[in-house]
Amino acid sequence: MQLKFDKATGLLPAIVQESGTGKVLMLGFMNAESFEKTLATGNVTFFSRSRNKLWVKGESSGHVLKVEDIRVDCDADAVLVVAEQLGPGTCHEGYRSCFFRRVEAGDLVIAEPRAFDPEQVYGDSSKSQSPAPANKE
Amino acid sequence: MQLKFDKATGLLPAIVQESGTGKVLMLGFMNAESFEKTLATGNVTFFSRSRNKLWVKGESSGHVLKVEDIRVDCDADAVLVVAEQLGPGTCHEGYRSCFFRRVEAGDLVIAEPRAFDPEQVYGDSSKSQSPAPANKE
Repeated sequence: MQLKFDKATGLLPAIVQESGTGKVLMLGFMNAESFEKTLATGNVTFFSRSRNKLWVKGESSGHVLKVEDIRVDCDADAVLVVAEQLGPGTCHEGYRSCFFRRVEAGDLVIAEPRAFDPEQVYGDSSKSQSPAPANKE
Repeated sequence: MQLKFDKATGLLPAIVQESGTGKVLMLGFMNAESFEKTLATGNVTFFSRSRNKLWVKGESSGHVLKVEDIRVDCDADAVLVVAEQLGPGTCHEGYRSCFFRRVEAGDLVIAEPRAFDPEQVYGDSSKSQSPAPANKE
């Protein structure tokens, strides 16, 4: 199996979709090592571009994503991971999905209720509802 | 509304999810111009990295993607477009979704039936089931 990681960055985009609901939870990037680790452990593992290292989603929050199925697209340069999310939500801002905002008349409008209090899970730094510089954990 | 296009490439990943079924159909990349065009026309429009120009999905096949909802993630560097697909499938290989292959014991296995004959839609060049170098159209 040959995946086509980007020649410049060594990464490819990985979509996570919740099993059962079909909800798209987040998009992260994987390098070859994080993809192999995802396969080997069954826990979705990204490469964090901001911290420049492997990032097991949920390693600090406990909200890990358990792999159920991995799909690869026609060009083999993107993957779709179907996963069960352990915990109330995937987004470090406290929402079930990172895609909790809708484009409406040129603005971003929050489109779903908060699922948990990020302050309790991550501490003070994620309290704000404004976009954070990078995914937490 | 500020989307964070990649500083190096001017692009961000855009997931397309089918309305109704929740099926993830494909992942493409958008630059600011293609995002604006998607908003303005209601037809999902990418930036083709292989052809280095705007790419209205379905412009040659007629299998356009009609925008129903656009979501933006917490970091504002990825979008999720919920769309109706006009036509039998999104993938230029003849499948409903580009993610038609599953990772199984280290191999890629076709996991859904073909929805249409790509030869009839695109001509001879898409006949092969092997991964193509770039999305057609």
